[in-house]
Amino acid sequence: MRNEKFDIEILDTTLRDGAQGEGIVFSVRDKLAITETLDELGVMWIEAGNPGSNPKDLEFFRLASSLKLKNAKLCAFGSTRKKGTKAVYDSQLISLLNAKTENVVIFGKSWDMHVNEVLQADLEENIAMITETIAFLKAEGRSVIYDAEHFFDGWVSNPAYALSTVKAALDAGADRIVLCDTNGGNFPDVISAAALAVVNTMPNKVIGIHAHNDSGLALANTIAAVQAGCAHVQGTLVGFGERCGNTALAALIPSLELKLGRRCLPEGSLVRIGELTRRAAEIANVIISDDMPYIGAHAFSHKAGMHADGILKTQRSFEHINPAAVGNERHFLISEIGGRSALVERVKKIDPSVDKDHPVIVSLAEKLKTLEAEGWAFEGADASFEILVRRELGSYRPLFSIAAYRVMSEHPTGGTIACSHAWVKVLVGDQYEIAASEGVGPVSALDGALRRALTHFFPNLAKVRLEDYKVRVIDGKDATAAQVRVLIESTDGQHNWSTVGVSADIIDASRAALVDSIEYKLIAGAEKKN
Amino acid sequence: MRNEKFDIEILDTTLRDGAQGEGIVFSVRDKLAITETLDELGVMWIEAGNPGSNPKDLEFFRLASSLKLKNAKLCAFGSTRKKGTKAVYDSQLISLLNAKTENVVIFGKSWDMHVNEVLQADLEENIAMITETIAFLKAEGRSVIYDAEHFFDGWVSNPAYALSTVKAALDAGADRIVLCDTNGGNFPDVISAAALAVVNTMPNKVIGIHAHNDSGLALANTIAAVQAGCAHVQGTLVGFGERCGNTALAALIPSLELKLGRRCLPEGSLVRIGELTRRAAEIANVIISDDMPYIGAHAFSHKAGMHADGILKTQRSFEHINPAAVGNERHFLISEIGGRSALVERVKKIDPSVDKDHPVIVSLAEKLKTLEAEGWAFEGADASFEILVRRELGSYRPLFSIAAYRVMSEHPTGGTIACSHAWVKVLVGDQYEIAASEGVGPVSALDGALRRALTHFFPNLAKVRLEDYKVRVIDGKDATAAQVRVLIESTDGQHNWSTVGVSADIIDASRAALVDSIEYKLIAGAEKKN
Repeated sequence: MRNEKFDIEILDTTLRDGAQGEGIVFSVRDKLAITETLDELGVMWIEAGNPGSNPKDLEFFRLASSLKLKNAKLCAFGSTRKKGTKAVYDSQLISLLNAKTENVVIFGKSWDMHVNEVLQADLEENIAMITETIAFLKAEGRSVIYDAEHFFDGWVSNPAYALSTVKAALDAGADRIVLCDTNGGNFPDVISAAALAVVNTMPNKVIGIHAHNDSGLALANTIAAVQAGCAHVQGTLVGFGERCGNTALAALIPSLELKLGRRCLPEGSLVRIGELTRRAAEIANVIISDDMPYIGAHAFSHKAGMHADGILKTQRSFEHINPAAVGNERHFLISEIGGRSALVERVKKIDPSVDKDHPVIVSLAEKLKTLEAEGWAFEGADASFEILVRRELGSYRPLFSIAAYRVMSEHPTGGTIACSHAWVKVLVGDQYEIAASEGVGPVSALDGALRRALTHFFPNLAKVRLEDYKVRVIDGKDATAAQVRVLIESTDGQHNWSTVGVSADIIDASRAALVDSIEYKLIAGAEKKN
Repeated sequence: MRNEKFDIEILDTTLRDGAQGEGIVFSVRDKLAITETLDELGVMWIEAGNPGSNPKDLEFFRLASSLKLKNAKLCAFGSTRKKGTKAVYDSQLISLLNAKTENVVIFGKSWDMHVNEVLQADLEENIAMITETIAFLKAEGRSVIYDAEHFFDGWVSNPAYALSTVKAALDAGADRIVLCDTNGGNFPDVISAAALAVVNTMPNKVIGIHAHNDSGLALANTIAAVQAGCAHVQGTLVGFGERCGNTALAALIPSLELKLGRRCLPEGSLVRIGELTRRAAEIANVIISDDMPYIGAHAFSHKAGMHADGILKTQRSFEHINPAAVGNERHFLISEIGGRSALVERVKKIDPSVDKDHPVIVSLAEKLKTLEAEGWAFEGADASFEILVRRELGSYRPLFSIAAYRVMSEHPTGGTIACSHAWVKVLVGDQYEIAASEGVGPVSALDGALRRALTHFFPNLAKVRLEDYKVRVIDGKDATAAQVRVLIESTDGQHNWSTVGVSADIIDASRAALVDSIEYKLIAGAEKKN
């Protein structure tokens, strides 16, 4: 039964339990992008939605079936059949089957109090619900992961009954049994003892753990369960989820791989975990805390002078792991000597003659520090970064400039033009060109006018269009006057590139990102011709 | 030796180890304000500075000596004497004494590797440093808390030597021995075994734990140490500190008091822990994560419909503690995956006569489904939700409308006005009013003009200002023409409320959220008068 590639199977539930976090709202497109990110990381399972409670998820599963996933298997999630019905007539189970995934996750009750007071069923009926649901899904050809909801609370309340529910699931054909600390209230000692009891009852079966962070112990409880013999772990990559969130896989997996020696991801994935977690967070529009273990921006920041001194003598004196193992970097906050080599690698891609002693590296590092303090972030904006590097190298000459623009939004309008309209005056060489455009909002109006004016000089811009547009308010304290970061993804049908702009004014931030996007396309075109 | 008031002594090191967190900078005034906050909460010890490494701290200790603290005792922090000197001549120890606190905290080395490679001393010299420093401070009349730096790494590397360092401290007169996981890399099983070894070696002594969160296990390690017999806990209230931070006391103390039954704070303090932690965070200029255990804004937010249903039957079905025990509140979120009962609970707060069979519940549920499909989300927008409910109930009459607006963003400008400016014409009853404003961006210009026009009619709007502004592009497919969701948080200095607007046009989405924000304030004001 055990997986041969991994010691621990990872199931990511960002798209199901993660979506139950306050403030998390995914579009179908977001869900597809997160699925691809998780697959790139190499988790084994992706629990991707609950089609019985959210019909929109069926649309996701339909579209997801044509994704070419390299590593992960998709699971749809649902519950045991309703009390007093038959599984075959349960509309929620029918929706689950309509998701057409080979693998499904089903949750059922293990806590006697819940059966009595919430389900208002008797204990035998609950066992029948578990048994019949799993038998039905197995007969339909599905592989079944069984989530034993509130298992640990149930084990504390009535251990014999809690154990009998998971035995019923196993006997009915469940392929994996997952013990859930649904309310997140238990301590590692209880988790450890209960998990050990199940592992010993079901030797050679894959037993899993699903923890919540209500006591701040989701990571510890998961590690305790793994040490007790669990080989399947559920969580969300970033950690968000219902209430205080789920086990944060990005903070868990490095502990399991580096400290317990348990393989969880394909070879070479661990160093990318920070990058891919930030991508998932970006899609979910949440911010990764700087002090997040392993991957946070401050995770290897040393402020105390004595710590920096110690590390220069021996790395492990004040670091529990080598930051490079998780793709992170050390920062000395007093003497800035870290981060340089990553920058050299990036600049070399644009000009291979640059080495670490080149003066441009020093000036770029300074420039980046200033820009980052102002709110710029180049992580998701490769094209803007390339233009910045070319500017520092002196090899960059702007091909156009914006002499003036005016953007207007009004309501009501005369009816012959949309609510937002813009005009732009550009300068190319010594020639001016003015163009106007309307749009559904001020940014699309500005974009339309700018590209119309420039296409006059550069016809290959006609193929360029915007793919994605994101806005992030960097510091809300000053409300509408806060800094705004705009990220734009552009495409010419063959390639995509992304650019960034920052300003207190959303129009001006958008202008900066639009200008970088067009410059990048023109530079790429010019180089192809040479 | 044990304290009679508390089962567990709490030592807060926000002002010392907390100040080693990246981005944390305290003025002397900040430190005094945090000292008073911690004293109000009732921690037993406040480790307030390191006068040997930061001479500014002496000024703090001078001013702090005139604070009238009800509960806490201040400690100054320093290290054992330098290698090859005498304690009496060590300038750092002289500074420590100059802080004039009755209690001092001293750290020394327990890890043989650190003694050899970082201190570059032999193991006996290190023992002498510990012994002589403590004997010197005791002779000066101080009570001494001894922090055994890297105790757990030392115990793994050379348990006999690690134990001999803390025995030396005890024999020299240390009043408390605190075991530190300085690098934050150890797991609860190691913490538990090592702490038990010390507790058994030193019966009837107060043994403490100081954990870091580099593996996300600071809370679990602290709980493991307490379960092994430690009765003194160090941490920072909010959790920030060097690298990934220290044990977050605000997330720890509820676990110790409510789940292990160990008294940590004076009677009546626990319900104020959220309020006082937010005050400390405010002074430190950091944000408390919404999903922080026990005290976070989302800690008791229920989104899944089944969870809301369960809680209405029995509270503990989906809550590990009663939120009121820590001064927090339950929230039922309104979303596509939330159920009917959450909706009824929320509507009841506005009109208690509504029950689940009231026709407004059906029409509201339909309306919410439609709006959510269009991209609206009311989860973070209580005030907009309330206005929506009042509209469905028929009890809502708009107090004003926007007859027209025009917003302009331009570059360059004439110089007499900012890049963005707006005018708005509002209608109140049968009276029109026009006002204009400039702003750093189009939204702040619109906000300024709208509130200026309305303050003419409603003077109490003068106190209202925007606290936070968030923009989310809901689906990037159509790039700048995608739907935009704007969330606004407003305040009148006493209360905060939040509203939402959705449109393809960011100006129009902002307008909708601004209008709801003002309507909400006017309704609340009108009801107070009645």
